[in-house]
Amino acid sequence: MTGIIMIIDGMADRPLKEIDYKTPLEAAHTPYMDEMAKSGINGIMDPIKPGIRAGSDTSHISILGYDPYKVYTGRGPFEAAGVGLDVMPGDIAFRCNFSTSNEEGIITDRRAGRIRQNTDEIASTLNSMEIEGFEDVEVIFKESTGHRAVLLLRGEGLSDQVSDSDPKYDGKPPKEVLALNSSPEAIKTAAVLNKIVKKSYELLKDHPVNMKRRENGENPANIILPRGAGAVPDVMPFNEKYGLNSACIAETGLIKGIARLAGMDVVEVDGATGGIDTNLDNITKSIIENAKKDYDFILINIDGADEAGHDGNLQEKIKFIEKVDKVVEKIRQIPEAYFILTADHSTPISVMDHTGDPVPIVINGPEIRVDEVEKFNENSATKGGLCRIRGRDVMNILLDLMNKSEKFGA
Amino acid sequence: MTGIIMIIDGMADRPLKEIDYKTPLEAAHTPYMDEMAKSGINGIMDPIKPGIRAGSDTSHISILGYDPYKVYTGRGPFEAAGVGLDVMPGDIAFRCNFSTSNEEGIITDRRAGRIRQNTDEIASTLNSMEIEGFEDVEVIFKESTGHRAVLLLRGEGLSDQVSDSDPKYDGKPPKEVLALNSSPEAIKTAAVLNKIVKKSYELLKDHPVNMKRRENGENPANIILPRGAGAVPDVMPFNEKYGLNSACIAETGLIKGIARLAGMDVVEVDGATGGIDTNLDNITKSIIENAKKDYDFILINIDGADEAGHDGNLQEKIKFIEKVDKVVEKIRQIPEAYFILTADHSTPISVMDHTGDPVPIVINGPEIRVDEVEKFNENSATKGGLCRIRGRDVMNILLDLMNKSEKFGA
Repeated sequence: MTGIIMIIDGMADRPLKEIDYKTPLEAAHTPYMDEMAKSGINGIMDPIKPGIRAGSDTSHISILGYDPYKVYTGRGPFEAAGVGLDVMPGDIAFRCNFSTSNEEGIITDRRAGRIRQNTDEIASTLNSMEIEGFEDVEVIFKESTGHRAVLLLRGEGLSDQVSDSDPKYDGKPPKEVLALNSSPEAIKTAAVLNKIVKKSYELLKDHPVNMKRRENGENPANIILPRGAGAVPDVMPFNEKYGLNSACIAETGLIKGIARLAGMDVVEVDGATGGIDTNLDNITKSIIENAKKDYDFILINIDGADEAGHDGNLQEKIKFIEKVDKVVEKIRQIPEAYFILTADHSTPISVMDHTGDPVPIVINGPEIRVDEVEKFNENSATKGGLCRIRGRDVMNILLDLMNKSEKFGA
Repeated sequence: MTGIIMIIDGMADRPLKEIDYKTPLEAAHTPYMDEMAKSGINGIMDPIKPGIRAGSDTSHISILGYDPYKVYTGRGPFEAAGVGLDVMPGDIAFRCNFSTSNEEGIITDRRAGRIRQNTDEIASTLNSMEIEGFEDVEVIFKESTGHRAVLLLRGEGLSDQVSDSDPKYDGKPPKEVLALNSSPEAIKTAAVLNKIVKKSYELLKDHPVNMKRRENGENPANIILPRGAGAVPDVMPFNEKYGLNSACIAETGLIKGIARLAGMDVVEVDGATGGIDTNLDNITKSIIENAKKDYDFILINIDGADEAGHDGNLQEKIKFIEKVDKVVEKIRQIPEAYFILTADHSTPISVMDHTGDPVPIVINGPEIRVDEVEKFNENSATKGGLCRIRGRDVMNILLDLMNKSEKFGA
């Protein structure tokens, strides 16, 4: 038996006047999702708790059975794991921008001309830099997508209680990083960061990539601005926690990072952009291929509906949901599987951001207590046999169905 | 007003192909349970949490309003209380087998020829034995059913962090009991246990009961093998916790033990076997009689459906549920009562063990918010007015209906 949880990011929504008070999921033509509803047990799920506006990260952490209030220390650690860094509990992780500074130390472009290429060369110059006076601190640096990058500090006596360097607006100097409490760890970490920001400019101002960018009239990526410090949490490996061999097929670094931190195998898929233009065929093929391997659990995240929601683009959201329905058609044919379809949160068109509304969830598989729900959407799901559950219940329910859980008591 | 909770052990199930994807409860003819559904408020209940596979013990602990993650220290303490020992918080309890050892110290029969008689005489020989060097430790020993018995150690500086003596297979010597940590308490307890195992053979090898067994060609019960150490938890008495005068009518030692540990009166019923052959007439009479006494709470556990589930015997499970329906008919006639009918967990025919599927629950009594559910079963219950609750909610709901709970706040 393979357990499959497919999470359509931000798919759930609120009723919209312009489509006769239906939600995009109700308006979309989704025969295969509805088939799942008919042959499964349905319900609504609060990713964290009723009314709590979950991020994609905290929701996935919760659905995987971890307590986000304990595990989630900020986005940094998950981004760092997501770009492929081997993060370790206790590392302090930061999200960074490659930015442009002028000679007077003023940030003239926080996104360095939205640089897209050769950031790996810049990152490798910064990676492993030594910080004078703090030779015990290991500096690990890696580019992410576009102007984004990740910084990890590793060593004794560090803290995530430090402020951001990013001034948030162009035309200002980098902010001095401050210790947020009076511990020696926070004071040390702030000092290290201020040196890193300064040294990044020295190392990058005449970097070959930036020389060429200047020649082309592009803003150089000659300084880095760390923000969002977070200590890498000590996460019990998912496979150990549940006795499973697990894989994750996801598009964004954030979700991949959660999977990596949980020790799951992360499968890369060509053309998976995380947008509405993503290659769903390749994702489908990858799911089917990996279900044939000896994984007994696969987590899938498909991101496009969330993007459409953030953009407030109703028609694109409906269209994308209909495309995902065809993925569902294929996944339903995987034999010997429990298949759970849900969303990680609502991203209503009207709000253009995540809300705390619960999301529909449906489970298909052998011996399910099939209920009378006939459609997969926010409204029908409320009448299902699961009633209202929480993200943290999902793995327990799945493991029980798969006969993989321990009895508690006699 | 009397509050009655009747728990039909393991009654809930999953849909079965051979009965047209109904559950045994759906397939059974249960007019009185359905009458309860019609005139009551219905819902589904997770004995512990969604998906968690509850034991009968942990589920009952939860339904009585205790946190099983804190109270449940293993089966030993509850078995010990179940056989009638006056256990005290801090006592270390063990389940034991009467076994057969040969002169070379090899266990030739872990169940001593499945001895059934005169174990009380053997137990009284062992009870109160003195352990050389550990005269401060009180040894309390009592027979249970068949080859089973219970050992209690009472005294200062004891621990339940010790391994089992039972070698699990015939043809091996008793396992040396080891301390599971390096505390002086664990080391002392292990030493005591090893002496008890050795001394039990000395005390029993020429015991009159065993002399007679040998004459009859039966394996002697000449050694005891303790296992499953558990410290007796400090349980707040049920009557004190809720301001109730309570009784328990149950068939198995495990459930009786929980009730005894909670300080409830335990009513013995003639012919209550805990199997499908149990005397339901006597149980019914006992419930009705005790409801006339000044108890304001009665917990009932009837075990046969669970046995049929563990045996995978569909027809017997259906038949037993139909028999229980006639008990329900009588209990419904008790005046001035709130009557709650539920199960402690699912024991699906297809799984032959407990699963984490929720169970149906219905409440009858004055001023109930009656819903539109018309049948008492796993599926209909999901549409009830209680929605999805947890075991630990039940006593609070009952006390509130009985106007016996304190207001929290002003």
